[in-house]
Amino acid sequence: MGLFTKDIKTLNDLFVHQLQDIYYAEKQLVKALPKMADKATSSQLKQGFLTHLKETEGHVARLEQVFKMHGAEVKAVDCPAIDGIIEEADEVSGEVADKQVLDAALINAAQAVEHYEMTRYGTLVAWAKQLGRNDCASLLQKTLDEERATDQKLTQLAESKINLKAAS
Amino acid sequence: MGLFTKDIKTLNDLFVHQLQDIYYAEKQLVKALPKMADKATSSQLKQGFLTHLKETEGHVARLEQVFKMHGAEVKAVDCPAIDGIIEEADEVSGEVADKQVLDAALINAAQAVEHYEMTRYGTLVAWAKQLGRNDCASLLQKTLDEERATDQKLTQLAESKINLKAAS
Repeated sequence: MGLFTKDIKTLNDLFVHQLQDIYYAEKQLVKALPKMADKATSSQLKQGFLTHLKETEGHVARLEQVFKMHGAEVKAVDCPAIDGIIEEADEVSGEVADKQVLDAALINAAQAVEHYEMTRYGTLVAWAKQLGRNDCASLLQKTLDEERATDQKLTQLAESKINLKAAS
Repeated sequence: MGLFTKDIKTLNDLFVHQLQDIYYAEKQLVKALPKMADKATSSQLKQGFLTHLKETEGHVARLEQVFKMHGAEVKAVDCPAIDGIIEEADEVSGEVADKQVLDAALINAAQAVEHYEMTRYGTLVAWAKQLGRNDCASLLQKTLDEERATDQKLTQLAESKINLKAAS
């Protein structure tokens, strides 16, 4: 998409643009997750980040499949939202002195990422269906389900362990 | 919080930092929502943004109440995440040529905002309870419920009307 031009003329253009945006976001996460795993003290949280890294690599591959099915170029566009979410995670975690409190901050950061992805995949599924691309919608729904499951696992881990330790 | 210092030493410090972050985010939204309403073509979407503006002003006031209940200074800290989400919304909407497609892009942007707020308030409620501040948790839960309801209304409007028009 060009600066100062209005290149998005149809819902299909918007759908492809949003695919490019989330493709960039997933690729940024492939870089960010190992760093989050390094910072985590809880072995369960560390393992959770590494498991989600594998899933995220799968999401990148699935997006490439959707681009191809839809006859669109596999391409990423800058996504200031995910950049901001990751920047905020780095800033806050850099300010935390205590390891248990850092784990609570890391889960909070990871859940902001999951929620960003959930909203984008939710919209992509709806737009794919509207465009008659149930094949694309079905693949995107798989990723949406995995992001939701990860978010729920993080909530469960936070509320059963990490927050308790952080408060102690 | 100071640059290059590790000022967050306890879960309570992290809780207050997160309050300051979402306080900044809500104040940015008070500025962004009237612009989104101006750009919307659907009268229902326009009205939805204006209704949510009133709610958002209430969320700002509620946060001020939580700061005071918790004995913390009412203060905002920069929130790169919300800045990124709003920047992305501005960029994408600036690239859309068609009014109906723009409405679909605006709903997508608004849902990214709602999801950001849902994740932050969800965490704040959990942390408040962990810190024995059920009074703060209960106020924060009210905002969380309103954000969720707004997100659901946006999904319903997108799927029943806006996406159909954008695809036509």
